[in-house]
Amino acid sequence: MFTHVKVVGLGRVGSALNARLEERGLAAGGDADPDLVLLCVPDQAIAGVAARLAAGPWVAHVSGATRLSSLEPHKRRFGLHPLQTFTRSRGAEQIDGAWAAVTGETDEARARAWWLADRLGLRAFDLRDDRRVLYHAGASMASNFLVTLYRAASHLFERAGVPPEALLPLMRRTMDNAFELTGPIARGDWSTVDAHLEAIRSHAPELEPLYRALAEATKT
Amino acid sequence: MFTHVKVVGLGRVGSALNARLEERGLAAGGDADPDLVLLCVPDQAIAGVAARLAAGPWVAHVSGATRLSSLEPHKRRFGLHPLQTFTRSRGAEQIDGAWAAVTGETDEARARAWWLADRLGLRAFDLRDDRRVLYHAGASMASNFLVTLYRAASHLFERAGVPPEALLPLMRRTMDNAFELTGPIARGDWSTVDAHLEAIRSHAPELEPLYRALAEATKT
Repeated sequence: MFTHVKVVGLGRVGSALNARLEERGLAAGGDADPDLVLLCVPDQAIAGVAARLAAGPWVAHVSGATRLSSLEPHKRRFGLHPLQTFTRSRGAEQIDGAWAAVTGETDEARARAWWLADRLGLRAFDLRDDRRVLYHAGASMASNFLVTLYRAASHLFERAGVPPEALLPLMRRTMDNAFELTGPIARGDWSTVDAHLEAIRSHAPELEPLYRALAEATKT
Repeated sequence: MFTHVKVVGLGRVGSALNARLEERGLAAGGDADPDLVLLCVPDQAIAGVAARLAAGPWVAHVSGATRLSSLEPHKRRFGLHPLQTFTRSRGAEQIDGAWAAVTGETDEARARAWWLADRLGLRAFDLRDDRRVLYHAGASMASNFLVTLYRAASHLFERAGVPPEALLPLMRRTMDNAFELTGPIARGDWSTVDAHLEAIRSHAPELEPLYRALAEATKT
């Protein structure tokens, strides 16, 4: 469906996608006219870059939360958000196994986005344009706030004088066990929850609001 | 150091540990006098069960948060908490790769606890008796609240009409990338954070306090 894809913006996401397009022979070379321009620029830059692009090729962005209207004046457009966290120390292989949220306003746009996801090695699902921000909030909770959770737990471990890396097998198994809830709240053991709060107040009071909010959400 | 270990309490943890002790030829058979009684009963039951145990063998518990004084009147005692989440659908192998928090009041008690951890297949670290609750709060954050985080993110995905299982490769990679923070807060992109909050208020208002507490903790 596309033969020459030009990536604009070679940050974490753009460089991984561009590497994969090169592997597939789909990256637009120096002089070739692209049939798709894939914007991998920061969210706030999308509208400005799109506005300056010559008309002709399809235009897409890889942002999670940004509406397709940001790609005006282009009408042949779609969004393809790789649902993954990218690091500069990995290459194209970090795409493998990830899903991608695809948004298109026409059947043709959706078909082209699914085709591109497949060629990149991503598993596509459709996302409504007006649900992008809600979807992206969920992705941020799962990834960014997982970092926060690990940091908070590590902090408590350090204060307790034990090694934070011991948390890793526990967290991996929690995922492997399909997020089955164990521990004091699952047992209805509120005296242990109260003891946790007292220990946190004594040794890491800055984490008390976080613990309370998480405990409250766990109960419901 | 021990040849006949009797496990009391065959719940999730006790049955996994007992299976491993059987594999190692360390489980106390029917008539054999145990040289260690390993209490795998609920936290609240430990003191009562310990008080009724005949004097003689070593006595230990596998609770995360419970002080060693709960094992009175026994003085040859220790704590060994496997830092893992256990499920009934797995056996002894779920011990492998996990760490264990070991608490002893004497060199001999600690040496015996480390020996047992090693025989069980656990990697031991020392934990002070007066830091047990703080340690356990950290373990609960990492495991129990990871469940909460996944449930909350899944809920947002469902409201957005996209498949929650797409979160799994993202969460695994977040761990594999050593919890490197990416996303809007890492980029200082507060307009996206505000947009998340607005979307959560509209579609899943019950999650707003949790999102706010997590975002606040992520910033600091």
